Amino acid sequence: MRDDFHQQLDTLRDDLARMCTLAGTALRHATAALLDGDQEAAGLVFDDVERLRLLQGTVERRTVVILARQAPVAGDLRTVVSAIRIAADADRMGGLAALVARMAVARHPGRVLPDDLIDTFGRMADMAIESADRCVDAVRTGHLDLAGDIRERDDAVEEMHADLHRRVVGASWPHGCAVASDVVLLGRFYGRFADHAAEIARRVRFQAAGVTAGI
Amino acid sequence: MRDDFHQQLDTLRDDLARMCTLAGTALRHATAALLDGDQEAAGLVFDDVERLRLLQGTVERRTVVILARQAPVAGDLRTVVSAIRIAADADRMGGLAALVARMAVARHPGRVLPDDLIDTFGRMADMAIESADRCVDAVRTGHLDLAGDIRERDDAVEEMHADLHRRVVGASWPHGCAVASDVVLLGRFYGRFADHAAEIARRVRFQAAGVTAGI
Repeated sequence: MRDDFHQQLDTLRDDLARMCTLAGTALRHATAALLDGDQEAAGLVFDDVERLRLLQGTVERRTVVILARQAPVAGDLRTVVSAIRIAADADRMGGLAALVARMAVARHPGRVLPDDLIDTFGRMADMAIESADRCVDAVRTGHLDLAGDIRERDDAVEEMHADLHRRVVGASWPHGCAVASDVVLLGRFYGRFADHAAEIARRVRFQAAGVTAGI
Repeated sequence: MRDDFHQQLDTLRDDLARMCTLAGTALRHATAALLDGDQEAAGLVFDDVERLRLLQGTVERRTVVILARQAPVAGDLRTVVSAIRIAADADRMGGLAALVARMAVARHPGRVLPDDLIDTFGRMADMAIESADRCVDAVRTGHLDLAGDIRERDDAVEEMHADLHRRVVGASWPHGCAVASDVVLLGRFYGRFADHAAEIARRVRFQAAGVTAGI
Protein backbone atom coordinates (compact mmCIF):
# COMPACT_ATOMS: atom_id res chain seq x y z
CA MET A 1 0.00 0.00 0.00
CA ARG A 2 1.20 3.52 -0.84
CA ASP A 3 2.26 5.65 2.11
CA ASP A 4 0.64 8.98 2.84
CA PHE A 5 3.28 11.03 0.99
CA HIS A 6 3.17 8.98 -2.20
CA GLN A 7 -0.61 9.05 -2.13
CA GLN A 8 -0.39 12.85 -2.04
CA LEU A 9 1.93 12.79 -5.07
CA ASP A 10 -0.50 10.47 -6.89
CA THR A 11 -3.36 12.86 -6.14
CA LEU A 12 -1.26 15.73 -7.50
CA ARG A 13 -0.59 13.79 -10.72
CA ASP A 14 -4.32 12.98 -11.01
CA ASP A 15 -5.17 16.67 -10.69
CA LEU A 16 -2.66 17.55 -13.41
CA ALA A 17 -4.09 14.82 -15.64
CA ARG A 18 -7.60 16.22 -15.06
CA MET A 19 -6.34 19.70 -15.96
CA CYS A 20 -4.87 18.44 -19.25
CA THR A 21 -8.14 16.59 -19.99
CA LEU A 22 -10.10 19.79 -19.35
CA ALA A 23 -7.76 21.86 -21.53
CA GLY A 24 -8.33 19.43 -24.42
CA THR A 25 -12.10 19.46 -23.83
CA ALA A 26 -12.13 23.26 -23.76
CA LEU A 27 -10.37 23.45 -27.13
CA ARG A 28 -12.71 20.78 -28.58
CA HIS A 29 -15.72 22.87 -27.52
CA ALA A 30 -14.10 26.10 -28.77
CA THR A 31 -13.38 24.48 -32.13
CA ALA A 32 -17.02 23.36 -32.45
CA ALA A 33 -18.03 26.98 -31.81
CA LEU A 34 -15.53 28.21 -34.39
CA LEU A 35 -16.09 25.69 -37.19
CA ASP A 36 -19.77 24.77 -36.72
CA GLY A 37 -21.08 27.98 -35.13
CA ASP A 38 -22.15 25.88 -32.12
CA GLN A 39 -23.09 28.51 -29.50
CA GLU A 40 -23.84 25.93 -26.82
CA ALA A 41 -20.30 24.58 -27.19
CA ALA A 42 -18.95 28.13 -26.77
CA GLY A 43 -20.79 28.38 -23.45
CA LEU A 44 -19.25 25.07 -22.32
CA VAL A 45 -15.74 26.47 -22.92
CA PHE A 46 -16.23 29.10 -20.24
CA ASP A 47 -17.36 26.38 -17.77
CA ASP A 48 -14.29 24.29 -18.67
CA VAL A 49 -12.02 27.29 -18.12
CA GLU A 50 -13.60 28.08 -14.75
CA ARG A 51 -13.07 24.47 -13.64
CA LEU A 52 -9.44 24.67 -14.83
CA ARG A 53 -8.90 27.82 -12.78
CA LEU A 54 -10.29 26.15 -9.67
CA LEU A 55 -8.14 23.06 -10.25
CA GLN A 56 -5.05 25.20 -10.66
CA GLY A 57 -5.76 26.72 -7.26
CA THR A 58 -6.17 23.22 -5.84
CA VAL A 59 -2.83 22.10 -7.32
CA GLU A 60 -1.03 25.14 -5.91
CA ARG A 61 -2.57 24.57 -2.48
CA ARG A 62 -1.61 20.88 -2.57
CA THR A 63 1.99 21.66 -3.57
CA VAL A 64 2.32 24.15 -0.71
CA VAL A 65 0.89 21.61 1.76
CA ILE A 66 3.18 18.84 0.50
CA LEU A 67 6.24 21.11 0.62
CA ALA A 68 5.38 22.34 4.13
CA ARG A 69 4.48 19.00 5.71
CA GLN A 70 6.61 16.49 3.81
CA ALA A 71 9.71 18.54 2.89
CA PRO A 72 10.38 16.25 -0.11
CA VAL A 73 13.88 16.03 -1.61
CA ALA A 74 15.51 14.99 -4.91
CA GLY A 75 13.14 13.55 -7.53
CA ASP A 76 10.03 13.97 -5.40
CA LEU A 77 10.85 17.63 -4.84
CA ARG A 78 11.33 18.13 -8.59
CA THR A 79 7.95 16.47 -9.23
CA VAL A 80 6.24 18.92 -6.88
CA VAL A 81 8.03 21.95 -8.33
CA SER A 82 7.22 20.82 -11.89
CA ALA A 83 3.56 20.41 -10.92
CA ILE A 84 3.34 24.16 -10.29
CA ARG A 85 4.57 24.92 -13.81
CA ILE A 86 2.49 22.19 -15.49
CA ALA A 87 -0.67 23.49 -13.82
CA ALA A 88 0.13 27.00 -15.08
CA ASP A 89 0.58 25.68 -18.65
CA ALA A 90 -2.68 23.71 -18.58
CA ASP A 91 -4.53 26.74 -17.18
CA ARG A 92 -3.16 28.92 -20.00
CA MET A 93 -4.27 26.30 -22.56
CA GLY A 94 -7.79 26.84 -21.23
CA GLY A 95 -7.33 30.61 -21.58
CA LEU A 96 -6.36 30.16 -25.24
CA ALA A 97 -9.42 27.98 -25.87
CA ALA A 98 -11.52 30.78 -24.34
CA LEU A 99 -10.00 33.28 -26.82
CA VAL A 100 -11.05 31.03 -29.74
CA ALA A 101 -14.57 30.71 -28.30
CA ARG A 102 -14.83 34.44 -27.64
CA MET A 103 -13.98 35.22 -31.26
CA ALA A 104 -16.61 32.72 -32.49
CA VAL A 105 -19.22 34.32 -30.21
CA ALA A 106 -18.27 37.87 -31.24
CA ARG A 107 -18.76 37.09 -34.95
CA HIS A 108 -21.97 35.04 -34.47
CA PRO A 109 -24.25 34.51 -36.43
CA GLY A 110 -21.53 35.14 -39.03
CA ARG A 111 -18.72 32.64 -39.46
CA VAL A 112 -15.18 33.62 -38.51
CA LEU A 113 -13.50 31.52 -41.18
CA PRO A 114 -13.97 31.40 -44.96
CA ASP A 115 -14.90 27.94 -46.30
CA ASP A 116 -11.48 27.30 -47.81
CA LEU A 117 -9.81 27.52 -44.37
CA ILE A 118 -12.21 25.27 -42.45
CA ASP A 119 -10.19 22.13 -43.25
CA THR A 120 -6.86 23.69 -42.29
CA PHE A 121 -8.19 24.85 -38.93
CA GLY A 122 -9.91 21.50 -38.42
CA ARG A 123 -6.56 19.73 -38.81
CA MET A 124 -4.72 22.26 -36.66
CA ALA A 125 -7.36 21.87 -33.95
CA ASP A 126 -7.19 18.05 -34.12
CA MET A 127 -3.44 18.12 -33.61
CA ALA A 128 -3.59 20.62 -30.75
CA ILE A 129 -6.38 18.68 -29.01
CA GLU A 130 -4.49 15.39 -29.43
CA SER A 131 -1.43 17.04 -27.88
CA ALA A 132 -3.49 17.91 -24.81
CA ASP A 133 -4.97 14.40 -24.66
CA ARG A 134 -1.49 12.87 -24.79
CA CYS A 135 -0.34 15.19 -21.99
CA VAL A 136 -2.96 13.44 -19.83
CA ASP A 137 -1.07 10.14 -20.13
CA ALA A 138 2.34 11.82 -20.00
CA VAL A 139 1.77 13.55 -16.65
CA ARG A 140 0.15 10.43 -15.21
CA THR A 141 2.76 7.90 -16.39
CA GLY A 142 5.89 9.95 -17.17
CA HIS A 143 6.15 8.00 -20.44
CA LEU A 144 8.77 9.49 -22.78
CA ASP A 145 7.65 8.34 -26.25
CA LEU A 146 4.35 10.12 -25.80
CA ALA A 147 6.22 13.28 -24.88
CA GLY A 148 8.32 13.08 -28.09
CA ASP A 149 5.13 12.67 -30.07
CA ILE A 150 3.70 15.86 -28.58
CA ARG A 151 6.84 17.76 -29.61
CA GLU A 152 6.32 16.68 -33.25
CA ARG A 153 2.67 17.74 -33.17
CA ASP A 154 3.69 21.13 -31.80
CA ASP A 155 6.11 21.58 -34.73
CA ALA A 156 3.39 20.56 -37.21
CA VAL A 157 0.91 23.08 -35.76
CA GLU A 158 3.63 25.76 -35.85
CA GLU A 159 4.31 24.99 -39.54
CA MET A 160 0.57 25.21 -40.36
CA HIS A 161 0.44 28.53 -38.54
CA ALA A 162 3.37 29.88 -40.60
CA ASP A 163 1.67 28.63 -43.78
CA LEU A 164 -1.56 30.42 -42.84
CA HIS A 165 0.40 33.61 -42.31
CA ARG A 166 1.98 33.28 -45.78
CA ARG A 167 -1.46 32.83 -47.37
CA VAL A 168 -2.92 35.83 -45.57
CA VAL A 169 -0.11 38.19 -46.60
CA GLY A 170 0.05 36.83 -50.17
CA ALA A 171 -1.23 38.90 -53.09
CA SER A 172 -4.00 36.40 -53.86
CA TRP A 173 -5.72 36.57 -50.43
CA PRO A 174 -9.38 37.19 -51.35
CA HIS A 175 -11.11 37.61 -47.95
CA GLY A 176 -10.18 41.11 -46.80
CA CYS A 177 -8.21 42.41 -43.84
CA ALA A 178 -10.77 41.76 -41.10
CA VAL A 179 -10.77 38.04 -41.88
CA ALA A 180 -6.98 38.12 -42.32
CA SER A 181 -6.42 39.47 -38.83
CA ASP A 182 -8.87 36.96 -37.30
CA VAL A 183 -7.14 34.10 -39.11
CA VAL A 184 -3.68 35.17 -37.99
CA LEU A 185 -4.78 35.54 -34.37
CA LEU A 186 -6.63 32.21 -34.38
CA GLY A 187 -3.55 30.53 -35.85
CA ARG A 188 -1.53 31.99 -33.02
CA PHE A 189 -4.01 30.78 -30.36
CA TYR A 190 -3.87 27.18 -31.65
CA GLY A 191 -0.08 27.43 -32.02
CA ARG A 192 0.38 28.66 -28.44
CA PHE A 193 -1.97 25.93 -27.16
CA ALA A 194 0.28 23.32 -28.79
CA ASP A 195 3.40 25.12 -27.42
CA HIS A 196 2.09 24.79 -23.89
CA ALA A 197 1.34 21.09 -24.42
CA ALA A 198 4.92 20.65 -25.68
CA GLU A 199 6.22 22.51 -22.62
CA ILE A 200 4.31 20.11 -20.36
CA ALA A 201 5.83 17.19 -22.29
CA ARG A 202 9.30 18.71 -21.89
CA ARG A 203 8.80 18.94 -18.12
CA VAL A 204 7.63 15.32 -17.93
CA ARG A 205 10.57 14.17 -20.03
CA PHE A 206 13.25 15.99 -18.04
CA GLN A 207 11.64 14.93 -14.80
CA ALA A 208 11.75 11.28 -15.87
CA ALA A 209 15.39 11.77 -16.89
CA GLY A 210 16.18 13.11 -13.42
CA VAL A 211 16.86 16.68 -14.54
CA THR A 212 14.50 19.58 -14.01
CA ALA A 213 13.43 21.25 -17.25
CA GLY A 214 15.08 24.58 -17.90
CA ILE A 215 17.73 24.04 -15.26
CA MET B 1 22.87 40.56 10.19
CA ARG B 2 20.59 38.42 8.01
CA ASP B 3 20.76 34.69 8.65
CA ASP B 4 21.67 32.26 5.89
CA PHE B 5 18.04 31.46 4.96
CA HIS B 6 16.93 35.07 4.68
CA GLN B 7 20.02 35.89 2.67
CA GLN B 8 18.98 33.14 0.25
CA LEU B 9 15.50 34.67 -0.02
CA ASP B 10 17.06 38.11 -0.65
CA THR B 11 19.22 36.62 -3.41
CA LEU B 12 16.11 35.03 -4.94
CA ARG B 13 14.32 38.42 -4.90
CA ASP B 14 17.38 40.07 -6.46
CA ASP B 15 17.38 37.49 -9.27
CA LEU B 16 13.69 38.11 -9.93
CA ALA B 17 14.30 41.88 -9.97
CA ARG B 18 17.13 41.36 -12.48
CA MET B 19 14.81 39.24 -14.62
CA CYS B 20 12.16 41.99 -14.67
CA THR B 21 14.86 44.56 -15.52
CA LEU B 22 16.06 42.38 -18.40
CA ALA B 23 12.50 41.85 -19.68
CA GLY B 24 12.01 45.63 -19.80
CA THR B 25 15.39 46.12 -21.52
CA ALA B 26 14.54 43.43 -24.08
CA LEU B 27 11.27 45.17 -25.00
CA ARG B 28 13.04 48.55 -25.15
CA HIS B 29 15.55 47.09 -27.62
CA ALA B 30 12.81 45.32 -29.60
CA THR B 31 10.82 48.55 -29.84
CA ALA B 32 13.89 50.42 -31.17
CA ALA B 33 14.20 47.70 -33.82
CA LEU B 34 10.49 48.00 -34.66
CA LEU B 35 10.06 51.78 -34.70
CA ASP B 36 13.52 52.98 -35.77
CA GLY B 37 14.68 49.99 -37.82
CA ASP B 38 17.63 49.66 -35.43
CA GLN B 39 19.18 46.28 -36.37
CA GLU B 40 21.81 46.43 -33.65
CA ALA B 41 19.06 46.80 -31.06
CA ALA B 42 17.34 43.72 -32.52
CA GLY B 43 20.54 41.73 -31.97
CA LEU B 44 20.68 42.88 -28.34
CA VAL B 45 17.17 41.50 -27.74
CA PHE B 46 18.36 37.96 -28.42
CA ASP B 47 21.23 38.45 -25.91
CA ASP B 48 18.76 39.78 -23.33
CA VAL B 49 16.49 36.78 -23.89
CA GLU B 50 19.38 34.33 -23.53
CA ARG B 51 20.38 35.95 -20.23
CA LEU B 52 16.77 35.76 -19.06
CA ARG B 53 16.66 32.05 -19.89
CA LEU B 54 19.83 31.43 -17.89
CA LEU B 55 18.51 33.46 -14.96
CA GLN B 56 15.27 31.51 -14.98
CA GLY B 57 17.31 28.32 -14.66
CA THR B 58 19.21 29.89 -11.76
CA VAL B 59 15.97 30.87 -10.00
CA GLU B 60 14.53 27.36 -10.39
CA ARG B 61 17.74 25.83 -9.07
CA ARG B 62 17.79 28.20 -6.10
CA THR B 63 14.15 27.47 -5.24
CA VAL B 64 14.81 23.73 -5.30
CA VAL B 65 17.89 24.17 -3.08
CA ILE B 66 16.01 26.40 -0.62
CA LEU B 67 13.05 23.99 -0.48
CA ALA B 68 15.32 20.97 0.01
CA ARG B 69 17.68 22.45 2.62
CA GLN B 70 15.53 24.98 4.48
CA ALA B 71 12.05 23.44 4.27
CA PRO B 72 10.44 26.89 4.63
CA VAL B 73 6.84 27.24 5.88
CA ALA B 74 4.02 29.80 5.77
CA GLY B 75 4.91 33.15 4.16
CA ASP B 76 8.47 32.15 3.30
CA LEU B 77 7.23 29.03 1.54
CA ARG B 78 4.73 31.11 -0.44
CA THR B 79 7.52 33.49 -1.43
CA VAL B 80 9.58 30.60 -2.81
CA VAL B 81 6.63 29.04 -4.67
CA SER B 82 5.68 32.45 -6.13
CA ALA B 83 9.26 32.95 -7.31
CA ILE B 84 8.88 29.96 -9.65
CA ARG B 85 5.84 31.54 -11.29
CA ILE B 86 7.28 35.08 -11.39
CA ALA B 87 10.43 33.79 -13.10
CA ALA B 88 8.28 32.02 -15.71
CA ASP B 89 6.33 35.24 -16.39
CA ALA B 90 9.49 37.34 -16.75
CA ASP B 91 11.02 34.73 -19.07
CA ARG B 92 7.90 34.80 -21.25
CA MET B 93 8.06 38.63 -21.37
CA GLY B 94 11.50 38.19 -22.91
CA GLY B 95 10.05 35.70 -25.41
CA LEU B 96 7.42 38.26 -26.46
CA ALA B 97 10.09 40.95 -26.93
CA ALA B 98 11.94 38.46 -29.15
CA LEU B 99 8.81 38.01 -31.31
CA VAL B 100 8.64 41.81 -31.83
CA ALA B 101 12.35 41.91 -32.74
CA ARG B 102 12.02 38.91 -35.06
CA MET B 103 9.22 40.61 -37.00
CA ALA B 104 11.31 43.82 -37.32
CA VAL B 105 14.27 41.78 -38.61
CA ALA B 106 12.10 39.79 -41.05
CA ARG B 107 10.72 42.97 -42.67
CA HIS B 108 14.08 44.82 -42.75
CA PRO B 109 15.02 47.05 -44.59
CA GLY B 110 11.29 47.75 -44.90
CA ARG B 111 9.36 49.11 -41.92
CA VAL B 112 6.72 46.94 -40.25
CA LEU B 113 4.44 49.82 -39.29
CA PRO B 114 2.87 52.57 -41.39
CA ASP B 115 3.75 56.11 -40.21
CA ASP B 116 0.31 56.77 -38.74
CA LEU B 117 0.71 53.88 -36.26
CA ILE B 118 4.21 54.72 -35.01
CA ASP B 119 2.90 56.97 -32.22
CA THR B 120 0.32 54.44 -31.03
CA PHE B 121 2.90 51.67 -30.80
CA GLY B 122 5.38 54.07 -29.18
CA ARG B 123 2.87 54.77 -26.40
CA MET B 124 1.90 51.10 -26.06
CA ALA B 125 5.59 50.17 -25.80
CA ASP B 126 6.27 52.90 -23.20
CA MET B 127 3.46 51.61 -21.01
CA ALA B 128 4.50 47.97 -21.32
CA ILE B 129 8.18 48.81 -20.59
CA GLU B 130 7.20 50.94 -17.59
CA SER B 131 5.12 48.00 -16.28
CA ALA B 132 8.22 45.81 -16.41
CA ASP B 133 10.35 48.49 -14.73
CA ARG B 134 7.82 48.81 -11.93
CA CYS B 135 7.80 45.03 -11.46
CA VAL B 136 11.49 45.40 -10.54
CA ASP B 137 10.58 47.45 -7.47
CA ALA B 138 7.47 45.39 -6.74
CA VAL B 139 9.31 42.04 -6.53
CA ARG B 140 12.13 43.62 -4.51
CA THR B 141 9.98 45.56 -2.02
CA GLY B 142 6.54 43.89 -2.13
CA HIS B 143 5.06 47.42 -2.36
CA LEU B 144 1.34 47.32 -3.17
CA ASP B 145 0.67 50.75 -4.74
CA LEU B 146 3.17 50.00 -7.47
CA ALA B 147 1.36 46.76 -8.16
CA GLY B 148 -1.99 48.59 -8.55
CA ASP B 149 -0.33 50.96 -10.98
CA ILE B 150 0.87 48.07 -13.15
CA ARG B 151 -2.70 46.70 -13.29
CA GLU B 152 -3.93 50.04 -14.67
CA ARG B 153 -1.17 50.12 -17.30
CA ASP B 154 -2.10 46.61 -18.35
CA ASP B 155 -5.72 47.70 -18.87
CA ALA B 156 -4.57 50.75 -20.91
CA VAL B 157 -2.40 48.58 -23.17
CA GLU B 158 -5.29 46.14 -23.59
CA GLU B 159 -7.61 49.01 -24.61
CA MET B 160 -5.06 50.30 -27.15
CA HIS B 161 -4.79 46.77 -28.54
CA ALA B 162 -8.58 46.55 -28.96
CA ASP B 163 -8.58 49.99 -30.63
CA LEU B 164 -5.88 48.86 -33.08
CA HIS B 165 -7.97 45.82 -33.93
CA ARG B 166 -11.00 48.01 -34.64
CA ARG B 167 -8.94 50.21 -36.97
CA VAL B 168 -7.51 47.24 -38.84
CA VAL B 169 -10.89 45.64 -39.48
CA GLY B 170 -12.58 48.99 -40.30
CA ALA B 171 -13.60 49.80 -43.90
CA SER B 172 -11.16 52.72 -44.06
CA TRP B 173 -7.99 50.70 -43.32
CA PRO B 174 -5.63 51.76 -46.15
CA HIS B 175 -2.53 49.58 -45.60
CA GLY B 176 -3.50 46.15 -46.90
CA CYS B 177 -3.84 42.75 -45.24
CA ALA B 178 -0.15 41.96 -44.75
CA VAL B 179 0.32 45.09 -42.62
CA ALA B 180 -3.01 44.43 -40.90
CA SER B 181 -1.94 40.99 -39.74
CA ASP B 182 1.45 42.29 -38.54
CA VAL B 183 -0.23 45.09 -36.62
CA VAL B 184 -2.71 42.76 -34.93
CA LEU B 185 0.02 40.32 -33.92
CA LEU B 186 2.30 43.10 -32.63
CA GLY B 187 -0.57 44.52 -30.63
CA ARG B 188 -1.07 41.11 -29.10
CA PHE B 189 2.65 40.74 -28.23
CA TYR B 190 2.69 44.09 -26.39
CA GLY B 191 -0.63 43.27 -24.75
CA ARG B 192 0.61 39.87 -23.50
CA PHE B 193 3.83 41.45 -22.24
CA ALA B 194 1.76 43.84 -20.10
CA ASP B 195 -0.48 40.92 -18.98
CA HIS B 196 2.54 39.05 -17.64
CA ALA B 197 3.74 42.17 -15.81
CA ALA B 198 0.27 42.47 -14.26
CA GLU B 199 0.39 38.79 -13.27
CA ILE B 200 3.71 39.38 -11.49
CA ALA B 201 2.16 42.36 -9.70
CA ARG B 202 -0.83 40.21 -8.69
CA ARG B 203 1.52 37.61 -7.19
CA VAL B 204 3.44 40.27 -5.26
CA ARG B 205 0.21 41.80 -3.99
CA PHE B 206 -1.34 38.53 -2.81
CA GLN B 207 1.94 37.47 -1.27
CA ALA B 208 2.15 40.71 0.71
CA ALA B 209 -1.47 40.19 1.81
CA GLY B 210 -0.60 36.71 3.05
CA VAL B 211 -2.60 34.82 0.44
CA THR B 212 -1.08 32.97 -2.50
CA ALA B 213 -2.30 34.29 -5.84
CA GLY B 214 -4.78 32.01 -7.57
CA ILE B 215 -5.41 29.97 -4.46
